[in-house]
Amino acid sequence: MNDLWKKNLRDIEPYVPGEQSKDRDIVKINANENPYPPSPKAVEALKNFDTDRLRFYPQANATALKQAIAEYYKVKTENVFVGNGSDDVLALAFQAFFNGDKPIAYPDITYSFYPVWCRLLGIEYVNYPLDENFRINVDDYKEENGGVVIPNPNAPTSIGEGREFVEKLMEYNRDSVVIIDEAYCDFGGVSSVPFIEKYENLLVTGTFSKSRSLAGMRIGFAIGSKTLIDTLEAVKNSYNSYTVDALSIAMGIEAMKDVEYFNKTISKIIATRTRVTEELRLLGFEVLDSQTNFIMATHEGYNMKEMFEYLKDNKIFIRYFNQPRINKYVRITIGTDEEMDKFLQGVKDFINR
Amino acid sequence: MNDLWKKNLRDIEPYVPGEQSKDRDIVKINANENPYPPSPKAVEALKNFDTDRLRFYPQANATALKQAIAEYYKVKTENVFVGNGSDDVLALAFQAFFNGDKPIAYPDITYSFYPVWCRLLGIEYVNYPLDENFRINVDDYKEENGGVVIPNPNAPTSIGEGREFVEKLMEYNRDSVVIIDEAYCDFGGVSSVPFIEKYENLLVTGTFSKSRSLAGMRIGFAIGSKTLIDTLEAVKNSYNSYTVDALSIAMGIEAMKDVEYFNKTISKIIATRTRVTEELRLLGFEVLDSQTNFIMATHEGYNMKEMFEYLKDNKIFIRYFNQPRINKYVRITIGTDEEMDKFLQGVKDFINR
Repeated sequence: MNDLWKKNLRDIEPYVPGEQSKDRDIVKINANENPYPPSPKAVEALKNFDTDRLRFYPQANATALKQAIAEYYKVKTENVFVGNGSDDVLALAFQAFFNGDKPIAYPDITYSFYPVWCRLLGIEYVNYPLDENFRINVDDYKEENGGVVIPNPNAPTSIGEGREFVEKLMEYNRDSVVIIDEAYCDFGGVSSVPFIEKYENLLVTGTFSKSRSLAGMRIGFAIGSKTLIDTLEAVKNSYNSYTVDALSIAMGIEAMKDVEYFNKTISKIIATRTRVTEELRLLGFEVLDSQTNFIMATHEGYNMKEMFEYLKDNKIFIRYFNQPRINKYVRITIGTDEEMDKFLQGVKDFINR
Repeated sequence: MNDLWKKNLRDIEPYVPGEQSKDRDIVKINANENPYPPSPKAVEALKNFDTDRLRFYPQANATALKQAIAEYYKVKTENVFVGNGSDDVLALAFQAFFNGDKPIAYPDITYSFYPVWCRLLGIEYVNYPLDENFRINVDDYKEENGGVVIPNPNAPTSIGEGREFVEKLMEYNRDSVVIIDEAYCDFGGVSSVPFIEKYENLLVTGTFSKSRSLAGMRIGFAIGSKTLIDTLEAVKNSYNSYTVDALSIAMGIEAMKDVEYFNKTISKIIATRTRVTEELRLLGFEVLDSQTNFIMATHEGYNMKEMFEYLKDNKIFIRYFNQPRINKYVRITIGTDEEMDKFLQGVKDFINR
């Protein structure tokens, strides 16, 4: 058969997500998921949903969900955009805002989807290396660019930057759009949402997959000036009009409104993180100070790739990145106290094996 | 304030979806939604879903849903791709397959999202006009091209083409990818899925939004050769790894498996379509022969835009396209018999007003 039709196929190397397992018996602390279930109010919204209405398209702009997000963040509904997970939101934002002739800028160690979007969309980029303590040097971002994207806190380093950092970053970058990716911000980071009024070129993105325990429902959002949000909407409506389904809208609204449950689960995760960090340090590990729902840890005396594999063999899934600078570390999601006890026991068994 | 940052924003004219209304009292026959609720088995899957597990990401490749689709269509799981509605699937397919230096080809009157994707993605296109009976002239597609996309049945004309048409189309287009968009095929069209083995460059797309009554859950799919599906997967995983959420996967599987309910609702819609077509013709309307869940109708004696507005004022929402060649027609989705009786009464009232 003639194969000329293959010449126009896209040849691209995709993003590789964290390992999934069908085995429900494992300790799954490899994908930064929340160990606690979604808000009972979100679950109630699901149970009460009139399923006959699923025959209709959802509201294309998901206004009710935007309103709930706007209320929580004390912004206007016109400042909120929602999408099919924050990956969808970021992919649309790259298309909406990174159309200049200069490369966009982001750190060398960061969310590994950024270079994938750049390849897909033909966006040039430069990477500025984190310093030896895995901190971002804000002065690197003085250089003229076609846009900036920075996760705050950063992943997989778990380290957050404060208000002063963001103010400097924005002052240096008056002429391009700056995206602050706050996927992990609720676990102790400092949100830049209050800056959107001062900086019309600042877009802050967030997700329901981590702090709201709804990874299964695919809800992401962005907050920014009306100009940025309107541009995002136009690009989204040139791609797929109905990205957030009816049940995600219904559950998302209640998850955002249930501040009490949110605060309670966040506090538990932070308390567990503190305890696990201390215990690992007592075992001789170096653990970066985390403002996220995961920690980065290493140990001078042991090979972390071996520990990762040892734990995996014992049904404890953490994450190891086989890439320069961070290949001496492992990333551990904070689970329940019970899960973390199993993890700590696994680590001790590894050391004493 | 300095506005230089605005220079890199994308300036684009988006797709405009059918009108939505919050009023539950209307007869909503404007968006080709199904008048019957989703399969009771799909609803049961939702009710039985362990909501605690929504804290986990869904299975990125949604294999279980692909398996259900593969079983129904008698293909292999490796021949199936799923996405966030067929708009997501088509947008990814345009990126995956239309990368040549020649324009892609599609009819002048067709799904109005095609030119929007072309503008977004920078794809050149040519349109071949439908003939005076709104039929596609397959010989137009002999011309060398960078790809072809044709809805079968076509929308908003409601007219389907048969096996001979598709065979000719594929024989003419050995050197590019051909997409057959079968969003409406289940209502009486002829599916091209059996051709995917013979033609490795044929991609057939489908949706759960019409014949499966799940527009609210955003599920679309594509069926084609392993080469096409693998390319689609690579592009999708360069954009958003988790596009179909956990509840959509669970409901989609059961909706696909419940062949009995599917056949029953399809038969009812076809019977109602036959009756409404006949009644409109008795009133002097010209109605195109539909193989979809909607009809295109016009009347020599009346202005269809006026009828559209009259019905809207009376809480009956149909669709009018203010564009060349079809601006003398209205598009009417087939609802329940009760809804269509209200519609027919509204039409009579309009005529006798």
